[in-house]
Amino acid sequence: MSEKLKGNILVTGANRGIGLELVKQLAGDEAHIYACCRAPEGSGAEALRDLTTQYPGKISIIQLDTSDEDSISAAVQAVNKQIGAGGLNLLINNAAINKPGTPAPLSASGKKDMMEVYEINVVGPFLIAKMLLPLLQRAAEMDSTVKDEGDKMSCRRSAIINISSLAGSIKICPENFARAQMYPYRASKAALNMVTRCQSEDFKRHNILVTAIHPGWVRTDMGGQEAPLSTQDSVHGMLAIMSSLSNKDCGMLLDWEGNMIPW
Amino acid sequence: MSEKLKGNILVTGANRGIGLELVKQLAGDEAHIYACCRAPEGSGAEALRDLTTQYPGKISIIQLDTSDEDSISAAVQAVNKQIGAGGLNLLINNAAINKPGTPAPLSASGKKDMMEVYEINVVGPFLIAKMLLPLLQRAAEMDSTVKDEGDKMSCRRSAIINISSLAGSIKICPENFARAQMYPYRASKAALNMVTRCQSEDFKRHNILVTAIHPGWVRTDMGGQEAPLSTQDSVHGMLAIMSSLSNKDCGMLLDWEGNMIPW
Ligand SMILES: NC(=O)c1ccc[n+]([C@@H]2O[C@H](COP(=O)([O-])OP(=O)(O)OC[C@H]3O[C@@H](n4cnc5c(N)ncnc54)[C@H](OP(=O)(O)O)[C@@H]3O)[C@@H](O)[C@H]2O)c1
Ligand SMILES: NC(=O)c1ccc[n+]([C@@H]2O[C@H](COP(=O)([O-])OP(=O)(O)OC[C@H]3O[C@@H](n4cnc5c(N)ncnc54)[C@H](OP(=O)(O)O)[C@@H]3O)[C@@H](O)[C@H]2O)c1
Repeated sequence: MSEKLKGNILVTGANRGIGLELVKQLAGDEAHIYACCRAPEGSGAEALRDLTTQYPGKISIIQLDTSDEDSISAAVQAVNKQIGAGGLNLLINNAAINKPGTPAPLSASGKKDMMEVYEINVVGPFLIAKMLLPLLQRAAEMDSTVKDEGDKMSCRRSAIINISSLAGSIKICPENFARAQMYPYRASKAALNMVTRCQSEDFKRHNILVTAIHPGWVRTDMGGQEAPLSTQDSVHGMLAIMSSLSNKDCGMLLDWEGNMIPW
Repeated sequence: MSEKLKGNILVTGANRGIGLELVKQLAGDEAHIYACCRAPEGSGAEALRDLTTQYPGKISIIQLDTSDEDSISAAVQAVNKQIGAGGLNLLINNAAINKPGTPAPLSASGKKDMMEVYEINVVGPFLIAKMLLPLLQRAAEMDSTVKDEGDKMSCRRSAIINISSLAGSIKICPENFARAQMYPYRASKAALNMVTRCQSEDFKRHNILVTAIHPGWVRTDMGGQEAPLSTQDSVHGMLAIMSSLSNKDCGMLLDWEGNMIPW
């Protein structure tokens, strides 16, 4: 139905879970992937390193700890050096943590959890987008395939996808609060949704699309083994949605099947 | 129409702006006010100290810096010592900051702003509620005036009011983003709305009502001098709304006139 993604794509938290699967599926497309992770040399990045062998020349591994401003700025510089005139077409802010875990009742959640989760899940993506803005603008300006107004924005041209969560929907919270209280995580994803909405307003003058996507409940370290979705199916769905996004989806929260989630 | 507020009421950020006006108007009612501020002895608390002279025995000034966990815990201990068997009927989380100010475009907002604003506007209220929970439960259990189910919860019995903002509405953001970008503040208030919603689910088993209220755009240091509302009118409106809240309002975001604001 919709064209595949292409161009330069940056993924954070690319060494395991949903991030690793994003790199795997994107590597088969006409894209160059900047696969960011905290410890590129560590044992936790072995699967990612294997992918670079499997898809030679398609993946650049970049060191990036999203909780560390200096690390973000060094990563942006490294990308900047490699990326060339095309700029960055797609930033996928995927890295996140859920502390103290699930179900995490109030009694188990303290100030440290609140601050750490916010730093990684909200401030990281906020700063990464801010620092990559020139490269996203470059890609937006480069695109000559734009057909009409309704088609101006897309993930092929220039876009930010913030991986959010159904657990960040304030409206829906009463439906799922009892089984996963997770104050720090929920507060962070609601804040990330706000940042998404602000960015979508802010960046539309540059023709940069900004959308939040909920990947579904997925079997990863974070999602746990009872989750119904495999990373393959979640990422397959999300990439199909991403490749179909246009102006009307800017500033929205969608799930991996394209359904709109209320704030 | 509705009965006045009464009992033991704690207000944070009580030394100026909306917080000071809350204390002023509540002091005339049948209430004892725990008026919390960062620097009770400082020049910024003079107006509050004057109120304690004007309303002898009605106001206890308590030192509380909402960004400091030890200060919160000392304040809770001080309140605990004084409050007696009735417990705490109403906690009003009012203290907040807006950094780097208004309009605060993206270029002016950095990591420090994001973290500081979250610490004061979200983590503070979160911790204060958590630590005061036993005193709120005590008040909820004491109340013998409960008539029927629909009437179980109220600000006279036991409640938390989180002072939020229209600027924290993710849905409405596109309508007011251009004139007040304020990423750190907006993200913090969206997160506070989520915390409110979580608390409302969490504490309803204790019959503690939790609601977020937007005070309107008010002439204070934060609101600026072009704001249309006086602190008197805003607080008059909010206290009328608070005194009328019942089960159906639990977990909602209302403005000072009682209108519901979408998330
Ligand atoms: N799984 C689900 O059911 C589910 C549901 C809703 C939303 N989500 C969202 O989907 C995204 C991916 O989740 P997942 O299930 O794949 O999680 P995961 O398996 O726990 O993987 C998290 C990834 O984020 C990285 N990360 C964490 N903190 C980081 C930091 N400070 N700097 C750089 N990278 C960091 C981790 O790297 P390390 O290996 O270095 O720790 C890892 O690569 C997250 O945004 C999550 O909130 C997941
Ligand atoms: N004014 C508006 O138009 C407007 C609109 C929407 C929402 N609101 C909300 O209404 C509430 C009150 O705002 P306002 O207009 O009265 O603001 P304000 O005039 O700036 O007063 C802020 C109050 O919060 C206190 N505070 C700040 N940081 C603190 C900390 N770490 N510990 C303890 N107290 C601290 C201040 O104390 P110090 O004197 O020690 O700094 C002061 O008492 C806030 O939640 C605000 O977000 C206001």
